[in-house]
Amino acid sequence: MPIRILFIGDIVGKPGRRTFKALIEEVKSSVGADFVIVNVENSADGFGITKKIYDELSPYVDVMSGGNHSWDKDEVLKEIDNMDKLLRPINLSVFAPGRGFIIKNINGVSIMVVNAIGRVFMEPCDNPFLILDEVAERYANIKIKIVDFHAEATSEKEALGWHLDGKFSAILGTHTHVQTADERVLPKGTAYITDVGMTGCHDGVLGFGYKEAVDRFLTGIKKRLKVCKTNLRLNGCVVEVDEESGRALSIKRINLPYESKT
Amino acid sequence: MPIRILFIGDIVGKPGRRTFKALIEEVKSSVGADFVIVNVENSADGFGITKKIYDELSPYVDVMSGGNHSWDKDEVLKEIDNMDKLLRPINLSVFAPGRGFIIKNINGVSIMVVNAIGRVFMEPCDNPFLILDEVAERYANIKIKIVDFHAEATSEKEALGWHLDGKFSAILGTHTHVQTADERVLPKGTAYITDVGMTGCHDGVLGFGYKEAVDRFLTGIKKRLKVCKTNLRLNGCVVEVDEESGRALSIKRINLPYESKT
Amino acid sequence: MPIRILFIGDIVGKPGRRTFKALIEEVKSSVGADFVIVNVENSADGFGITKKIYDELSPYVDVMSGGNHSWDKDEVLKEIDNMDKLLRPINLSVFAPGRGFIIKNINGVSIMVVNAIGRVFMEPCDNPFLILDEVAERYANIKIKIVDFHAEATSEKEALGWHLDGKFSAILGTHTHVQTADERVLPKGTAYITDVGMTGCHDGVLGFGYKEAVDRFLTGIKKRLKVCKTNLRLNGCVVEVDEESGRALSIKRINLPYESKT
Amino acid sequence: MPIRILFIGDIVGKPGRRTFKALIEEVKSSVGADFVIVNVENSADGFGITKKIYDELSPYVDVMSGGNHSWDKDEVLKEIDNMDKLLRPINLSVFAPGRGFIIKNINGVSIMVVNAIGRVFMEPCDNPFLILDEVAERYANIKIKIVDFHAEATSEKEALGWHLDGKFSAILGTHTHVQTADERVLPKGTAYITDVGMTGCHDGVLGFGYKEAVDRFLTGIKKRLKVCKTNLRLNGCVVEVDEESGRALSIKRINLPYESKT
Ligand SMILES: [Fe+2]
Ligand SMILES: [Fe+2]
Ligand SMILES: [Fe+2]
Ligand SMILES: [Fe+2]
Ligand SMILES: [Fe+2]
Ligand SMILES: [Fe+2]
Ligand SMILES: [Fe+2]
Ligand SMILES: [Fe+2]
Repeated sequence: MPIRILFIGDIVGKPGRRTFKALIEEVKSSVGADFVIVNVENSADGFGITKKIYDELSPYVDVMSGGNHSWDKDEVLKEIDNMDKLLRPINLSVFAPGRGFIIKNINGVSIMVVNAIGRVFMEPCDNPFLILDEVAERYANIKIKIVDFHAEATSEKEALGWHLDGKFSAILGTHTHVQTADERVLPKGTAYITDVGMTGCHDGVLGFGYKEAVDRFLTGIKKRLKVCKTNLRLNGCVVEVDEESGRALSIKRINLPYESKT
Repeated sequence: MPIRILFIGDIVGKPGRRTFKALIEEVKSSVGADFVIVNVENSADGFGITKKIYDELSPYVDVMSGGNHSWDKDEVLKEIDNMDKLLRPINLSVFAPGRGFIIKNINGVSIMVVNAIGRVFMEPCDNPFLILDEVAERYANIKIKIVDFHAEATSEKEALGWHLDGKFSAILGTHTHVQTADERVLPKGTAYITDVGMTGCHDGVLGFGYKEAVDRFLTGIKKRLKVCKTNLRLNGCVVEVDEESGRALSIKRINLPYESKT
Repeated sequence: MPIRILFIGDIVGKPGRRTFKALIEEVKSSVGADFVIVNVENSADGFGITKKIYDELSPYVDVMSGGNHSWDKDEVLKEIDNMDKLLRPINLSVFAPGRGFIIKNINGVSIMVVNAIGRVFMEPCDNPFLILDEVAERYANIKIKIVDFHAEATSEKEALGWHLDGKFSAILGTHTHVQTADERVLPKGTAYITDVGMTGCHDGVLGFGYKEAVDRFLTGIKKRLKVCKTNLRLNGCVVEVDEESGRALSIKRINLPYESKT
Repeated sequence: MPIRILFIGDIVGKPGRRTFKALIEEVKSSVGADFVIVNVENSADGFGITKKIYDELSPYVDVMSGGNHSWDKDEVLKEIDNMDKLLRPINLSVFAPGRGFIIKNINGVSIMVVNAIGRVFMEPCDNPFLILDEVAERYANIKIKIVDFHAEATSEKEALGWHLDGKFSAILGTHTHVQTADERVLPKGTAYITDVGMTGCHDGVLGFGYKEAVDRFLTGIKKRLKVCKTNLRLNGCVVEVDEESGRALSIKRINLPYESKT
């Protein structure tokens, strides 16, 4: 029996959470999802996550993943050990709090989710290529292993996909907030997409109002960005994985509008 | 009558040129293209362009666009004034040789093509937002105006799209070499896509063999990249523009395999 | 008669302001300063400046210069037109509020101060080389012209110094907060130093406590930095300029301890 | 008896080597050097090192250190195991060829030299803070341990100095090619300087002719840089270390002109 993994791209602010909660049950049943992963690094006003939002999203998901914005809200550092489903990138440093991977048991099947972060055009961190190699080797007995690779550069994402082909069930990109059209199953069985996109307002810049964003580029001064609320969409993908081998059988992009009645 | 603009993403090396030349006539006729633009910054071994390659590609295209790799081959600096269809980014500096825009007349219709480059995660250059504003204003009489925005960051690309909505017929992204799935016509009539993708080998990293690319990430040492040759594909898009108003009517992605008989 | 310009490097937080106010009169008289410039981009808790701090420092100085931290406090955007002595980098954008240069008259002598910012390893902005060329040309009648070049890369700073040699009286670097030992008068009469250093606590990292700074490097998580208070020093330089020609006659580094009685 | 370590900053091209060879014996005897370390990452035309240049410099030095330019010449990858005195940064990756530290025995005294590289504004690599912690711990029995920290950002360099204070005899910065005026012995006995500077032409940009360097900033096009030849100077420092404890007793900057008879 194939296992179906539903992976949702970065939820941005309240409009993103609203979109997610309005559509998630319908999406789960329409794709037949056995397991739900969602990236939450922008779920609180666009910057980080709080314990309250964690609790709000928790009933709908199995694992929440992170990225460079994981620590934007200070309270996460204190609360992270009470947020059992929350990941932060595995390769920040041996001294980072929280966890970089989670192994869950769903109807007798083990599913591992790893969150890693890129290094090109991003903050210094440990080598994701080497750490994920080690994860693959140490947890070879767990067949279904999904990576949320939160990274900027297409070069680094593609290189990681090829490097890990056959070692993970899926390498799914996040962080750029723009869905790419390159989803495929690589030759040795790893589902790959450079970026799954984001969940929230799609009439702005990465989920934020474009006025402030454009203003930065026009003036050279960084004003605070505000989450936008129109053209709400849920972005993500669904990966079908063979339970025995852990090989991906298919990957499909998801890009659904939320026809809010507001 | 709508005008159909065919825009082809970065041609990478000989495999890219081979793919382009094998498919271009068929694509042109199937989409009914009136005008062809192609990004050539990687056409010579993946790095830059030569006069010889310019001559090789010239019969098939109206305009060749560039990017951060425009100057990789020294000879371009000497030959650029003999390469009438070649653009380099308009916003490098007032002192850069060559031209940043071209205006062509096709059956009595003027079409302007501008090449601009981004600043986020890229080399310093002039402000593309301000320069393109000025282009839009000074050439308001030319209705059909297409921008090749060669940039890395999705934030900068989306912000530019929104900022220029209604001022250009299309803002088409290049440089990341990965096609995005966000093509649309913005509310005021500008066709937009974050990246059209690349033309050449799609079984590597940005058109280069993944072994050397992965090696860089594993060792921290930059060995020379080599263009790869398998899974050849032509990437781009076709934009339909209303001749009178210059507004885009539609934008469609193109991602075609080249079934080489090699 | 030579004019003596006293230039003080980035004041960091309250310890920096305390050091500055305690030493400034003594330094002015010991070097015979005719004119005082101070960089204030870190004067408010290490991040930006407020109107209150502007008023606190104003009696001691002729011009206050800025940098990438100029806008850290939101109120500056509203108050900047009431802060007559305050500069922000001239090359941010034509649309940035505030002014990038000031011309003052001291005993019948005009002195121009320009604040420019670098582009390498910094945020996108306009080309400082071209803008300063234009400043030099347009204000050729003003003999004494001082540049605070707020930049990261030694390459960009040295290149600017050589490029503008003979066009300005001095190119004085700020931003790295570490004083360099390369002060000299370049062949055509421009005083140059890569960085004048900073004013405040010298037992930390750029004027901030090293515990939090080190923690960032150990964990990959950015906790808030706090200004430190020990080993207080005033850093800067004094440039002697020939009034007639505007040529620098000498440049001397200043690095003075403040023996606080706390 | 104190041990005197002479450390020479990045030798740039042939003018740098000429300066170094002309002055080294005199400097050694005037400072009473027991041990000589020199950074050679720019010794071959400004980019990397060759086996021939290694042999040319070898008689004068105990250890040659590297940086981001270590691999600029391809032959180094093949020859590095025949270059016994040559270091490359220890924290590139476990898979980088060559060695990151050397332990030498001088008259019965063990001296360890480690080359590490920074991560801020540089290429991705392993965490220098953690790796140097581990070096300090594993080699606690070796009292005299010198670090060449090849890094761009003053923040990272200062943070490393404070973090390792008391664990190494000296943390000596390289890479910016501009000597800083902040040399000191930190409270727990580690000699520190942000950058020792460079050896070669001091009338250019980082040892290269300023015309080409300035041209890059004016045009946005990267022409090849050429090593310059005037105002030749040897930059470095001498650190006096207590043999028993490994604590630094003093650090003095060196900045000597080479009055060539050309
Ligand atoms: Fe995100
Ligand atoms: Fe992110
Ligand atoms: Fe390209
Ligand atoms: Fe490019
Ligand atoms: Fe500063
Ligand atoms: Fe600054
Ligand atoms: Fe160097
Ligand atoms: Fe270097």
